[in-house]
Amino acid sequence: MAVTTRTVPEICAAAQRAARELATASTEAKDAALEATAKLLEGRSAEILEANAADLADERAAGLTSALKDRLTLSEERIAAMADGVRTVAALEDPIGEELERKTLASGLELRKVRVPLGVVAVVYEARPNVTIDCAALTIKSGNAIVLRGSSYAERSNGALAAIVQEALAEAGLPEDAALLVAGGGREELAELATQDGTVDLLIPRGGEGLKSALKDVATVPVIYAAAGNCHVYVHADADLEMARRIAYNAKVQRPGVCNAAETLLVHAAVASEFLPAALADLHAAGVELVGDRQAREAAAGVEVGEATVADWGTEYLDLKMVVGVVSSLEEAVEHVNSHGTSHSEAIVTSSEDAAARFAAGVDAAVVYTNASTRFTDGFEFGMGAEIGNSTQKLHARGPIGLRELTTYKYVVRGDGQVRE
Amino acid sequence: MAVTTRTVPEICAAAQRAARELATASTEAKDAALEATAKLLEGRSAEILEANAADLADERAAGLTSALKDRLTLSEERIAAMADGVRTVAALEDPIGEELERKTLASGLELRKVRVPLGVVAVVYEARPNVTIDCAALTIKSGNAIVLRGSSYAERSNGALAAIVQEALAEAGLPEDAALLVAGGGREELAELATQDGTVDLLIPRGGEGLKSALKDVATVPVIYAAAGNCHVYVHADADLEMARRIAYNAKVQRPGVCNAAETLLVHAAVASEFLPAALADLHAAGVELVGDRQAREAAAGVEVGEATVADWGTEYLDLKMVVGVVSSLEEAVEHVNSHGTSHSEAIVTSSEDAAARFAAGVDAAVVYTNASTRFTDGFEFGMGAEIGNSTQKLHARGPIGLRELTTYKYVVRGDGQVRE
Repeated sequence: MAVTTRTVPEICAAAQRAARELATASTEAKDAALEATAKLLEGRSAEILEANAADLADERAAGLTSALKDRLTLSEERIAAMADGVRTVAALEDPIGEELERKTLASGLELRKVRVPLGVVAVVYEARPNVTIDCAALTIKSGNAIVLRGSSYAERSNGALAAIVQEALAEAGLPEDAALLVAGGGREELAELATQDGTVDLLIPRGGEGLKSALKDVATVPVIYAAAGNCHVYVHADADLEMARRIAYNAKVQRPGVCNAAETLLVHAAVASEFLPAALADLHAAGVELVGDRQAREAAAGVEVGEATVADWGTEYLDLKMVVGVVSSLEEAVEHVNSHGTSHSEAIVTSSEDAAARFAAGVDAAVVYTNASTRFTDGFEFGMGAEIGNSTQKLHARGPIGLRELTTYKYVVRGDGQVRE
Repeated sequence: MAVTTRTVPEICAAAQRAARELATASTEAKDAALEATAKLLEGRSAEILEANAADLADERAAGLTSALKDRLTLSEERIAAMADGVRTVAALEDPIGEELERKTLASGLELRKVRVPLGVVAVVYEARPNVTIDCAALTIKSGNAIVLRGSSYAERSNGALAAIVQEALAEAGLPEDAALLVAGGGREELAELATQDGTVDLLIPRGGEGLKSALKDVATVPVIYAAAGNCHVYVHADADLEMARRIAYNAKVQRPGVCNAAETLLVHAAVASEFLPAALADLHAAGVELVGDRQAREAAAGVEVGEATVADWGTEYLDLKMVVGVVSSLEEAVEHVNSHGTSHSEAIVTSSEDAAARFAAGVDAAVVYTNASTRFTDGFEFGMGAEIGNSTQKLHARGPIGLRELTTYKYVVRGDGQVRE
């Protein structure tokens, strides 16, 4: 592991050479590297835990919040979960080489549109060392090289995990440089990594708004930002109100700190006074702080609902807080979602096919649900095996970023001497 | 046509409202708008030519080169060609609503991945007024609104053409604001347009390097740059040399000023002295200035070949000039192409399936040809009906940008009350 002695441009150039080799690697070789990774994780757990303990004991970890410390901490269980995750990715279909289209052109040329890897994928992440393994598994399976840049306080844990991936790659006869770790977690390395045009084909930041805005200022390579999720649950006039109550509760309470949790509850005026008292009492009982517009507060019938400010409608609380509004039509709900949402995950509860179709067509978001919690937007839940992030942008990938989203295509055209007239 | 009285943010916001309406418009309505556009172009040619004559007579056109003046000039034939182009787009399959995937998730949710429009597409272009019509036809068919920003010296021509599109949209019952023209061609308007995050979903510059670098400095909205094409023709040791001669000639000479024209000719050492004298004599006779490496110059047998500088291998001449090199293996050719190319269009001439496959797999480019000219990289030639540009980036769209490349997808998920455990 010579990772610490190379500069960022050298690392990216080495990754690009490895990527070109990995692009034509067989599915068997890639799967062998993943199986070897899983085995080494299991066999070397003591070594990994030792590195992790050193990170936790380091003065750099002293200032971390308990939540961040928990995210940094590895255990036998967490290592076993990583190994399981790698095997899950190995079992997925290899996206590379898939023929997306084949046709004979007017000129007689035989055109094939074939799925190929992106090349070099850089991932910048915070705290969780398991990201090292999760992301490397996805890039290896999709034929990409990965350049990882984790937090400086997770340096030893990430180093031990990256070394395992490199050993596994070598065991499978694949280039070790297909998984490289950038040493040092400073803003300079970040800026350097984000400007390696010509070698870094995609950069994915996995972290908070601070990381994202730092990148927005400097990045010249393509970036997919896992944007915030200001998700809504809209309860239509004809909704099964008991179902609506369960969905709103789940979308808010089950795991409030994630991007697919709901932040806003919208209710059609026709059912506001019937729906809100019980639904809001439930949320209140779960510790959710509620704010709302005038109509919602009036319909709340004794449940404490504060006055919503304009800012509330656009806030991703990521916490046990929810803003509640009453709308007079489905169109108003759609308009509200499009004005205040972040195009992540939006849900309607309705018993009408027509209302479901109008909501799905009108709302501009990666995922639109009918009669389900917004919490399902996730690579595992979507049957993609895993995800490297979640995209709210429209170009290239929308929603969970799995294996296929880490690919591009190439036109392979065969002729017998055609020239253009 | 109130285009001149609205600010850029107002124009983009209006386009977004129109885009949301157009997103759910029927194929019939969109095709009706296109047919109406074609008819109005034919019926109003006198009016269009008058506006064009005024542009040409304006002092702003006085400083244009004769090439730019030619590009600005419209004629009955050019207007008829625009109308034909619009009807060609109308005849293409509507990409919107296509179901890309459908599956039942483990949770019982029914997931559909459906093709939807991007929303608002901005196109910045120079000189050619026909771009107004060509691009609007593609965006209307793909359910997108378009914001057009042409050259100030083509203002009246573009205005007349945009007015026709708006009238046609209205005739078909579609929102006129789905095709809007930004008045004024200054750098300020460009910077304003390129920073309308939240309303502009994609910006496509159609112009020279000056325009592109101006955008790179300021753009915060997603941009697809139609990058340069430093394309290669590689003649393998087992090539049909007569075919190779025709392909090299066509790729260089047939239209040297376009991005899919070849700039470099690479030849395997085993056939250099047999191939180069006749091939280079042909090119020379067509007025092509030749430069080359030592081996190529030695093999040229009397044809005048200058000494190539390092810069030559990385230059997109867009002119009757070509650099010629001799390589000792297919791998060296691939390495050369990947080092110096711009990932646009690359060709090998070979009689071997194996060599063709190795070249196609090894070269990292949007289009890789075997035994055909690089000049075929084009939306029309690829059977996509038309193109709004050509992408050499890897994310979202690679190669010609046609109807499908102007779309994204949305997951539409149906449940019966599912919540996450």
